[in-house]
Amino acid sequence: MRIAVIGAGALGLYYGAMLQRAGNEVRFLLRRDYQAISKAGLSVTSPDGDFHLQSVQCALDPAELGPVDLVLVGLKTFANHRLIDLVAPLMQGETCVLTLQNGLGNEELLAKAFGAERVLGGIAFLCSNRGEPGTVHHMGQGRIRLGEFGGGLSERASALATLFNQAQVPCEAVADLRRARWEKLVWNIPFNGLCALTGKNVTELLKHAPSRAEIIAIMGEVITAGNAQGLSQPIDAEPFIAKMISATETMDGYQPSMMIDRLKGHPLELEAIYGVPLTRASECEGEMVRVGMLHALLELGETA
Amino acid sequence: MRIAVIGAGALGLYYGAMLQRAGNEVRFLLRRDYQAISKAGLSVTSPDGDFHLQSVQCALDPAELGPVDLVLVGLKTFANHRLIDLVAPLMQGETCVLTLQNGLGNEELLAKAFGAERVLGGIAFLCSNRGEPGTVHHMGQGRIRLGEFGGGLSERASALATLFNQAQVPCEAVADLRRARWEKLVWNIPFNGLCALTGKNVTELLKHAPSRAEIIAIMGEVITAGNAQGLSQPIDAEPFIAKMISATETMDGYQPSMMIDRLKGHPLELEAIYGVPLTRASECEGEMVRVGMLHALLELGETA
Repeated sequence: MRIAVIGAGALGLYYGAMLQRAGNEVRFLLRRDYQAISKAGLSVTSPDGDFHLQSVQCALDPAELGPVDLVLVGLKTFANHRLIDLVAPLMQGETCVLTLQNGLGNEELLAKAFGAERVLGGIAFLCSNRGEPGTVHHMGQGRIRLGEFGGGLSERASALATLFNQAQVPCEAVADLRRARWEKLVWNIPFNGLCALTGKNVTELLKHAPSRAEIIAIMGEVITAGNAQGLSQPIDAEPFIAKMISATETMDGYQPSMMIDRLKGHPLELEAIYGVPLTRASECEGEMVRVGMLHALLELGETA
Repeated sequence: MRIAVIGAGALGLYYGAMLQRAGNEVRFLLRRDYQAISKAGLSVTSPDGDFHLQSVQCALDPAELGPVDLVLVGLKTFANHRLIDLVAPLMQGETCVLTLQNGLGNEELLAKAFGAERVLGGIAFLCSNRGEPGTVHHMGQGRIRLGEFGGGLSERASALATLFNQAQVPCEAVADLRRARWEKLVWNIPFNGLCALTGKNVTELLKHAPSRAEIIAIMGEVITAGNAQGLSQPIDAEPFIAKMISATETMDGYQPSMMIDRLKGHPLELEAIYGVPLTRASECEGEMVRVGMLHALLELGETA
């Protein structure tokens, strides 16, 4: 299968490398890593074993990547104003697009430009970051849940899940992508934002009883808003929150990506993780008061 | 009138100096400034004219100040665990206590120890800070609104207002001290906390539409909770908020005291400004969701 990776940061480079190693024809759209990778290839360090791909197809211009069967999108959502222009040159008759970007609204953007029937989305549970140019560090996890933008379990989604599984990336196809996205938001909205805002890691937030209570309250707001979207099956708040909290308690001192971005002065993915979910919630009268305040204060921090 | 000043920071030093200059016998409980003031007196710089008091009665131990007619309390509320021990040696038959401390709960502490009939409270609108030992800088304002802890307009409160006015401190006696305290909280709760949490000043907060909207929403929560306390007359939310916002718009780049304390790594007055008001609100089913979240995040910042 011919696969193009758009947005080749830590996520795109890792999944692209795994897919190429498994025998797929992968083409990377690069910017920062172009020189290094076209000269010397792409290295992955991983607890599952390091590996190196000597010959990597890559370009600076998406038009040079040519048409493919699958476009894998890993672009940071704050660059979404460029998304359609980057993907368009890769599309031909049967090409489909799988966005692994964070938050809500990405599938909609792609569907509007290319048609809903060509769009899938996935949620990646991946710890990785970029090393020196040409190297990506995989620290752990990597599981993907993917599904059709239009909903339902399709053969195509199952085939993509198989593609990833054959590449040693655990992957499942889900019937309700929107539910999977809202489930991920239940974690992302409190922890990414509160850690970025306060400069405290997840363990510090959970150790302090009042902030722990706020995390739980925020998770409740997100679940209520998600369930108001008419998911195939509502998220059962109490056990789901308990599971999220107890999973996070094992992540000793973990700094979510948004916290690291804030510490480094990088832009944050606020629209996809906060703005769009807040709009969806307000459309369904599922007002998220704490989430709205968190969003406002995070946005304030983006001002000069 | 014999007046003791307990908690001689920027507020206590300024008001004590103004009262002494007007001919009252003022005694200061000092710590940091003791050496400087007992040797060389107390200096006030002010846009209204600088002045110096050469001879200042002061002590390190409240027992040395002896009984007085009025105890003026300017102690930071995070030191309230020492409040009663500091005030007790100054009390005799008719002594009354006027606390100019921030937030809620201070009059109650004093009333429990010395009797409600001896306690008054006041809200100070003062911009001042401490300079080198022996000097206090008055930057502007200084108005006081004071009243009986037990409520109602008393002769005693009017006499105290006259005392301050004669000392060039604009002062009015109010019949409903609780209402005056809640009115002050309508400003203090959003601006002190949000500036301390985000590191942005009041102008930056108001300039950014989403944080401006949060400020207004928080003010609304505080007014709803205050009005649930059975004030003599409810606070009329819309015009009061409009007045607060437009007054703050003239305070170009102003950094509230809590923001400065946070930047300096000093403790914050969270219990008086957030904790007690939140408890009072919850007792009246006037839940303040945003205020609770703000309190939790500010408290988190106080942890190591």
